[in-house]
Amino acid sequence: MNDNKSFIEHGGDIYTEGKFKGIKLVDFSSNINFLGIPKSFTNNVHKALEDIICYPDLKYREAKLHISEYLKEGIKEENIILGNGAAEIINLAIRALKKPCIVVPSFSEYETTAKDYSKEIAFSYLNEDFSYNYKDIMERLKECDGLVIANPNNPNGCIINKESFEQIIYYCEEYKKKIIIDEAFIEFVEDENQSFVDKCLSFKCLFIIRAFTKFYAMPGIRLGYGISSDIDFIESLLKLQIPWNINTFAEVAIKSVLKDQEYINNSKVMLNIERQYFTGELSKFNFIDKIYEAHANFLLIRLIKTTGEDIFNYCILRGVLIRRCRNFRGLDDSFVRLAIKSRDDNQKLLNIFMEFEIQLTGGK
Amino acid sequence: MNDNKSFIEHGGDIYTEGKFKGIKLVDFSSNINFLGIPKSFTNNVHKALEDIICYPDLKYREAKLHISEYLKEGIKEENIILGNGAAEIINLAIRALKKPCIVVPSFSEYETTAKDYSKEIAFSYLNEDFSYNYKDIMERLKECDGLVIANPNNPNGCIINKESFEQIIYYCEEYKKKIIIDEAFIEFVEDENQSFVDKCLSFKCLFIIRAFTKFYAMPGIRLGYGISSDIDFIESLLKLQIPWNINTFAEVAIKSVLKDQEYINNSKVMLNIERQYFTGELSKFNFIDKIYEAHANFLLIRLIKTTGEDIFNYCILRGVLIRRCRNFRGLDDSFVRLAIKSRDDNQKLLNIFMEFEIQLTGGK
Repeated sequence: MNDNKSFIEHGGDIYTEGKFKGIKLVDFSSNINFLGIPKSFTNNVHKALEDIICYPDLKYREAKLHISEYLKEGIKEENIILGNGAAEIINLAIRALKKPCIVVPSFSEYETTAKDYSKEIAFSYLNEDFSYNYKDIMERLKECDGLVIANPNNPNGCIINKESFEQIIYYCEEYKKKIIIDEAFIEFVEDENQSFVDKCLSFKCLFIIRAFTKFYAMPGIRLGYGISSDIDFIESLLKLQIPWNINTFAEVAIKSVLKDQEYINNSKVMLNIERQYFTGELSKFNFIDKIYEAHANFLLIRLIKTTGEDIFNYCILRGVLIRRCRNFRGLDDSFVRLAIKSRDDNQKLLNIFMEFEIQLTGGK
Repeated sequence: MNDNKSFIEHGGDIYTEGKFKGIKLVDFSSNINFLGIPKSFTNNVHKALEDIICYPDLKYREAKLHISEYLKEGIKEENIILGNGAAEIINLAIRALKKPCIVVPSFSEYETTAKDYSKEIAFSYLNEDFSYNYKDIMERLKECDGLVIANPNNPNGCIINKESFEQIIYYCEEYKKKIIIDEAFIEFVEDENQSFVDKCLSFKCLFIIRAFTKFYAMPGIRLGYGISSDIDFIESLLKLQIPWNINTFAEVAIKSVLKDQEYINNSKVMLNIERQYFTGELSKFNFIDKIYEAHANFLLIRLIKTTGEDIFNYCILRGVLIRRCRNFRGLDDSFVRLAIKSRDDNQKLLNIFMEFEIQLTGGK
């Protein structure tokens, strides 16, 4: 959790890398919607300022109502648990498992949490092309009491094939194993039907994690939530929470941005345009061996003739922070991850990469 | 913790009592500085809006630096742990005790947390005049591994006599028992020397809890902190926290309000004036048997010829929420607690009490 290990592991650490040294870095290491904070939130901040003099509602009834309307699919207040960031929900859900199977490479907090609370951990590695290995997951689940999987997956951006995954759901439902699906990036996916929220009411084994961090560009507001039709499970997690775990600004965010259809649509359109452009331009570099197909707002890249460390150092000297991948289980220093950002920022990185390539080939 | 029990136990529950029914209640049940949110915070909210697109610093280095400057006494960053509300710090600190001795009556979260995590709990009851029973505390500590005490105490507002408490500190330091002092209301106390922060560096057994909730009038921002010179203890609590537990608005609050000397001074002056006026007026009612000497911004009152329930119901029908005390260990329905608020609000309550008294005596 908050130990030194995870401290060096996360993207977005602009503090260690730059902020304290007075340098403003362009951050390609954390995957935040490049449209920035929705105006529907900033326009409503005054409401939070009026309300922070009161304690929040201990049950967060109104906030949950807004989320249930946003999710549709018949999800009700009682199916929702709010967290101080998705980090809290990840922590609570994984703590509930004795032996989780974690699909890797993935967000390091899954493993960090499991190490703190679980007796054993199993890992299911993605296939060589970085698609999910459904057969392997099924096999490993036989000796586990739950699955931890991200949809889309971070750091590569693949999404679960719902048809292929169906058998796993039926199996877990029958044998009372939990499936924790981290959908922190799901709103970036073009096809809305890729989410598993529509299966939640039919399958009690499912526990879906969502966040405001990525799509709504508010990591600083600390807000995530979990969804399940297993009310007993939800209540057992609620009991582990401290009272008033969600701040008033986060409550206002819930009430403001989830119905901001303009922001939601623009984000998807702009991301598609930039993903296409950025992928196309990146593929021209000789030191980039492969760009993996991505459904979210980041790209996993395999390098050739150079290392993540070298290119990281080259970039940071030029004011740009990228994500090395050597501390992702199953990856090494031949990978880097890049957020897809605005055209200006993307162009800035492409220019640095161009110089890097020239330097690499000795100007030849 | 966040279960139904504590849900009905806390003050400030304007949601269950009014907000959902469309009624705006005057809240005398939660003890918030009646000057309201410091302007030094609202004037700086734009800084949070610029920053929430970034993850907070995992180590909250700058925020801790501001707190250490505020506390003086040589307290350093490494002596401070930040919490998502004082609630998180209370939870973490009490979890560390196997058998705590809790001084009661006091804030219900101490006991709620201890029940969840401790094997046994001992209680030291305040004296009949609601002063601390130092001799009894000392006696009970022999079989406990830590003390939980508030300074000033809630619900009555008494403060620890530092001289009388000295022996307890020496004893706990020698026998490696923890002393958790909740100083959530300490800034309201006229004499700054009543805090135990000045003893922190000399005694590793001390762990002080502070909050932004009460004095800085921001329960909705969720911010509290713990202070100790026992670095190992601080680090063991840090390990139990989830990453990024403090939101960006709370960080901005830390950087803004702690140096707002005008707000700090005004708060103390205004509270003194209102406490004197309110106490004087309240003492005239025949149904009030006793008002306990209070050093914070609330008054504990013993009733006669009526009950807390009756007066609570009478007040809520007139748009005012007061705090019944029947669920405080050691108190019963002959007590109520009142926040000290602005002259207008206090007058409103006094008028209601006047009508209540007339009704009670049958107009005689």
